[in-house]
Amino acid sequence: MAAKQTKNTVAGNMVIAQSGGPTVVINQSLVGAVLEARKHPQIRKIYGSLHGLKGLLEENLCDLRKETPANLELVAKTPSSALGSVRKKPTPEDCAKVFAVLQKYDIRYFFYIGGNDSAETTHIVNEEAKKGGFPVRCFHICKTIDNDLRENDHTPGFGSAAKFVAQAFMGDNLDNRSLPGVKINVIMGRHAGFLTAASALARQFPDDGPHLIYLPERAFSLEKFVEDVKAVHARLGRCVVAVSEGIQDENREAIASKFIKETDSHGNVQLSGSGALGDLLAKEIKEKAQISRVRADTFGYLQRSFAGVVSAVDAKEARLAGRMAVTYAVAGEFESGSTAIKRKPGKVYKTWIERTELKNVAKETRHMPDEFINAAGNDVTKAFLDYVRPLVGDLPATGRLKAVRIAKKA
Amino acid sequence: MAAKQTKNTVAGNMVIAQSGGPTVVINQSLVGAVLEARKHPQIRKIYGSLHGLKGLLEENLCDLRKETPANLELVAKTPSSALGSVRKKPTPEDCAKVFAVLQKYDIRYFFYIGGNDSAETTHIVNEEAKKGGFPVRCFHICKTIDNDLRENDHTPGFGSAAKFVAQAFMGDNLDNRSLPGVKINVIMGRHAGFLTAASALARQFPDDGPHLIYLPERAFSLEKFVEDVKAVHARLGRCVVAVSEGIQDENREAIASKFIKETDSHGNVQLSGSGALGDLLAKEIKEKAQISRVRADTFGYLQRSFAGVVSAVDAKEARLAGRMAVTYAVAGEFESGSTAIKRKPGKVYKTWIERTELKNVAKETRHMPDEFINAAGNDVTKAFLDYVRPLVGDLPATGRLKAVRIAKKA
Repeated sequence: MAAKQTKNTVAGNMVIAQSGGPTVVINQSLVGAVLEARKHPQIRKIYGSLHGLKGLLEENLCDLRKETPANLELVAKTPSSALGSVRKKPTPEDCAKVFAVLQKYDIRYFFYIGGNDSAETTHIVNEEAKKGGFPVRCFHICKTIDNDLRENDHTPGFGSAAKFVAQAFMGDNLDNRSLPGVKINVIMGRHAGFLTAASALARQFPDDGPHLIYLPERAFSLEKFVEDVKAVHARLGRCVVAVSEGIQDENREAIASKFIKETDSHGNVQLSGSGALGDLLAKEIKEKAQISRVRADTFGYLQRSFAGVVSAVDAKEARLAGRMAVTYAVAGEFESGSTAIKRKPGKVYKTWIERTELKNVAKETRHMPDEFINAAGNDVTKAFLDYVRPLVGDLPATGRLKAVRIAKKA
Repeated sequence: MAAKQTKNTVAGNMVIAQSGGPTVVINQSLVGAVLEARKHPQIRKIYGSLHGLKGLLEENLCDLRKETPANLELVAKTPSSALGSVRKKPTPEDCAKVFAVLQKYDIRYFFYIGGNDSAETTHIVNEEAKKGGFPVRCFHICKTIDNDLRENDHTPGFGSAAKFVAQAFMGDNLDNRSLPGVKINVIMGRHAGFLTAASALARQFPDDGPHLIYLPERAFSLEKFVEDVKAVHARLGRCVVAVSEGIQDENREAIASKFIKETDSHGNVQLSGSGALGDLLAKEIKEKAQISRVRADTFGYLQRSFAGVVSAVDAKEARLAGRMAVTYAVAGEFESGSTAIKRKPGKVYKTWIERTELKNVAKETRHMPDEFINAAGNDVTKAFLDYVRPLVGDLPATGRLKAVRIAKKA
């Protein structure tokens, strides 16, 4: 499993940090990296930086060699970033300060676990280090429930979040079947609809919801939405809808951003942590479709941090991503990079980790490919279901009564 | 287990229905009743009424003898009401129509699974039957995630919903620890705070959230709320809050009802299916406490129907409640009643089902006893934790890094 050792050996200390939105398997990557690092004598001290880059800037470091293997294994199974997280895009001044700290602590290995913004941070640190001739190997470890990192077939954190969404829709579809009406669920996903699309895994019978799925990849029209819901409701007497928080109008403006104004330092509008989008859509259906029972839930932070709903495949791959980042860094063939999950095409599920350039995953995101979205832009295709099913693994077994009807008596 | 058979034997058909909000174990009660009924020769046909009382009124019945045991077992594990549900308070005219249907189908046993409103429905049907001399044995089978049925130590459905809430808060507390700020979670519970209170099970370390818990049993003041949050935030740099959807001001008016107007036929204001209360509270904190990162999630319907999060104790007791209702009805000692879960006081968890009068559980609800709520009215007590822990069972194991800090270098 370990990459070939070259003569390009660097001895020194390492630091690892977590950044961006947590997942339920992000600590698997942390623990994978720490346990791998312990195998390599050229890595001396293993520092954890608390709350991402902020920990380095403020010299808030902890000693990850002091953790017992048993506690590391428990932490690996624990949701959310054990080192703390941050959303911070470093300025050149921040980088200069970071290098001063790296120098002071003799840190030659820098590992940053996160999504596209965190990859951008790693890329900036790496570029600034090269410019200034500062010798540090910078590696990004892939992570995001949004599943929108380029170069990756899928990303650690996504499978477990998708499992949560699928289980939620399994129950919610049955809830809506027992008390019919329109139910709108708002799912995380700023630019990419993968997580919202995973709601389709909840379907077991032909009339199961979600009956409509709206993704950021297709322009969202309130008029079309109302017509779609009316049509399903007329056919089934009920309608379950999955809506991505990041749905956008034809001018690519997020529907939610019309009434939410907060942004972070990467320029992202805060879409989660508010029920406003769901309430807006529910109001629209009540008013325009004349359907009385309309409800909206916004799954919010539960999707990324719920304790106890984990995809086994996701946990395993997250661990491997952490290990492989250290393996690549130590091997020395490359001074920097990111881990990317690759997958063999075809029916047998087989994946591996490759090293890719930081610039290939930084900043920009990938979207649902066209073949995963139906022509009407309100559902997913079988190709998507084939893609996503192995990432999520087993779902709870559920059933229906045969409910053989009694003929009415005269 | 079966109650003593008396000479008071009635032969005829039975009907069973489900009513009110679903739970993840309500089908356990259905299946328990059906399997028990199959053991008693005096019960002939076993009808399921689709969507509660509505199914009887419209003669939408199914034949539950046509279900295989294997499919019944699968349905028992499936969330939400397999027969469909309804929220309907019967008028005397409805009752007359119901009796005509019962007579036409020779139905002598009527079972209704639900909460206090469903118990009221059963009570009304039973009283009208007595008045009109119509011979039907009416039994209510206890169910509600709100845990607010009188006569019951706790109710089927609550333990599993409490497990969901606890697991959600375990993850959300860690999420908030990694990206600090104020996080407000709105939990179901119209009149009783049990489910919101169960969030306290998420605590593992002294500084774990939820840090504040607001229940409908104590008057809610926005001013006090802001002060409480500011104090926790000043101490820990973050604050996780559990708020019941049913919180009320000092005049006992629901805070949420100030901006939600929809009611059902039992006169209940619709509190769920909207993020409005959470958003109101978040706005208050942003404006009055000058804390920038404030988020609110409303757990909504996920709490009662999430596939795959089930308390084993809850499932077992729900099954038993269904079985015992049939056992009591067939035994004939009483013409009507409800099942109530009783519990032995003390440290060893032991429960059993007793029959109680319908009027004892109908309509009115019970609340959190004073000894379960702290003096400040913003937390629960150890007595509550001792009460609730066995109902929920095991929670996922989680941990923290020891995170031994490195001394800052000069």
